[in-house]
Amino acid sequence: MKTGEDRLVRKITKALAFGRLPGLPLGAGDDAALLQPRPGRQLVLTCDWFLEGSHFLRDKHPPDSVGWKCLARAVSDVAAMGGEPRYFLLSLALPETHTGKWLDGFLRGLARAERRFQCHLAGGDTTRNHKILINVTVIGDVPAGRAVLRSGAKPGDLIFVSGRLGEAELGLRSLRSGRRVMRGNSSRWVKKHLYPEPRLALGRWLAEERLATAIMDLSDGLSTDLTRLCAASRVGARIAIDKIPKAELPNKRGRSKFDATELALHGGDDYELLFTVHPRQAGQVPSAFQGLALSCIGEVTGKPGVVLVGAEGREQKFVPRGWDPF
Amino acid sequence: MKTGEDRLVRKITKALAFGRLPGLPLGAGDDAALLQPRPGRQLVLTCDWFLEGSHFLRDKHPPDSVGWKCLARAVSDVAAMGGEPRYFLLSLALPETHTGKWLDGFLRGLARAERRFQCHLAGGDTTRNHKILINVTVIGDVPAGRAVLRSGAKPGDLIFVSGRLGEAELGLRSLRSGRRVMRGNSSRWVKKHLYPEPRLALGRWLAEERLATAIMDLSDGLSTDLTRLCAASRVGARIAIDKIPKAELPNKRGRSKFDATELALHGGDDYELLFTVHPRQAGQVPSAFQGLALSCIGEVTGKPGVVLVGAEGREQKFVPRGWDPF
Repeated sequence: MKTGEDRLVRKITKALAFGRLPGLPLGAGDDAALLQPRPGRQLVLTCDWFLEGSHFLRDKHPPDSVGWKCLARAVSDVAAMGGEPRYFLLSLALPETHTGKWLDGFLRGLARAERRFQCHLAGGDTTRNHKILINVTVIGDVPAGRAVLRSGAKPGDLIFVSGRLGEAELGLRSLRSGRRVMRGNSSRWVKKHLYPEPRLALGRWLAEERLATAIMDLSDGLSTDLTRLCAASRVGARIAIDKIPKAELPNKRGRSKFDATELALHGGDDYELLFTVHPRQAGQVPSAFQGLALSCIGEVTGKPGVVLVGAEGREQKFVPRGWDPF
Repeated sequence: MKTGEDRLVRKITKALAFGRLPGLPLGAGDDAALLQPRPGRQLVLTCDWFLEGSHFLRDKHPPDSVGWKCLARAVSDVAAMGGEPRYFLLSLALPETHTGKWLDGFLRGLARAERRFQCHLAGGDTTRNHKILINVTVIGDVPAGRAVLRSGAKPGDLIFVSGRLGEAELGLRSLRSGRRVMRGNSSRWVKKHLYPEPRLALGRWLAEERLATAIMDLSDGLSTDLTRLCAASRVGARIAIDKIPKAELPNKRGRSKFDATELALHGGDDYELLFTVHPRQAGQVPSAFQGLALSCIGEVTGKPGVVLVGAEGREQKFVPRGWDPF
């Protein structure tokens, strides 16, 4: 005789590659998951909230996007250490009305993310709640001593970002308005918001080549996250506004409605990597890595605070205005 | 310039032993925590919801109990594998009104649990929410090959439980009613509900001595959890009603109001251990371990299903009626 919770757990484990993996002696169905760490490696552990109302909207975000994104954003933290994701624990609280079709869609997106990131379900916890609550813990690893921290940036290092910043924020606004904000790029931006791609290969490459002195992922917006990287490294930064890779607004209407610079500075959810490189090694950073643009946007300074330099050399102070729940 | 979230993280890390520990290279403040696994050991990973409204009530449960219990119940899953808890990740979502006095009380209880269980903060995630949401991931370890699963029970094994069952449920009812249900034991039951003690030493001892063939912790009530253990081991069980250690109701009024057997069968949150032992080794199980009573309540059978045997030998079927969120 099975309880409702047991049935739910079975549905989840069936949808994912659970129990069909080597190296995972045991997981859901027992009190805890049992994992074999790989020799010579350190563990990378991270967890992330993904809550209805705060991180997604039940009526705007398709369930498979919720499944994909809850794992993608936790995996992105592992990418930002130069690590490799291996397993995840899924904590899921659902209304009873959402244990059917909605859950099927959610598990489809999650299973796709599981395969893409090679990060597999090891366990979790389920319960009932009137709102959909998700918490994902990712367990990754990295060769011992090779993790790249936020705190390693030194004055003189050059500052790089991957991709274009602000695109996911544009996608969110497009989704929220319920109209197609602009033709052309709109669906690309919505896709970037719904199905972000954590920069795993880039993070690993930067760590393996010992190129980056610091890495973090851009989840809360450049203004907030660069300020955090500088605080962790006890340095400052000078950023050139016109070097920040921005969303390409295709027409005049788009440009009158949105400020691509504001979006690039403060828009969240891009999951691009922000990293710093010693000036002697900066020449080894290509302009693109596996098709992903890498842009040098400024340099690390010894003076606390982030300064933004405009086109005519005018300086302005950089105030964190990215995502802050409080 | 700090964001509200940064301030909250600082408050949490200051209250706990964070950053003052050997073996934890890095945690909160970076993208992820970095841990050094111990050689010759496997990892034990578990996560647990602790949600306002489902697992605790804002106006009934003191904040330090919420802090203690959210860690205790996750640690209990590690005890049930025979493992040793090492680190935890704390995901906390709070209303802004609860980031002051309530959070201080919560962190006091959590810090006390951290010291008691020797299980230390390694990282986490914080956000704002109108209800208090908690998710705790515990990372423990166990000598490789020594973890005790749910699935190892064999027909003929004897079934044991630690402590007395149903006491935490009595404590919850006492707390809910807002009156002192009964004098004498009432505060002891309330304490067991608010500040449960995971049976870490017992779990480790059973694993080290290779005494238990299966262990699980009793979180959802004996009827539900024994049914799960039997399902995992593909066995059945016969339980003697009068051998189940029950709460001692002190007077006639208590006995007319509560059925100690019902409470022991279906009451949740005791966090005692349920374990099975080969009959040849059953003599090595003492009647008490470090002052904690150990009782033999029945035996494992080859026939699926759990049978309850009454005082006069009358058999009845055992239906899971413990905690099930769905």
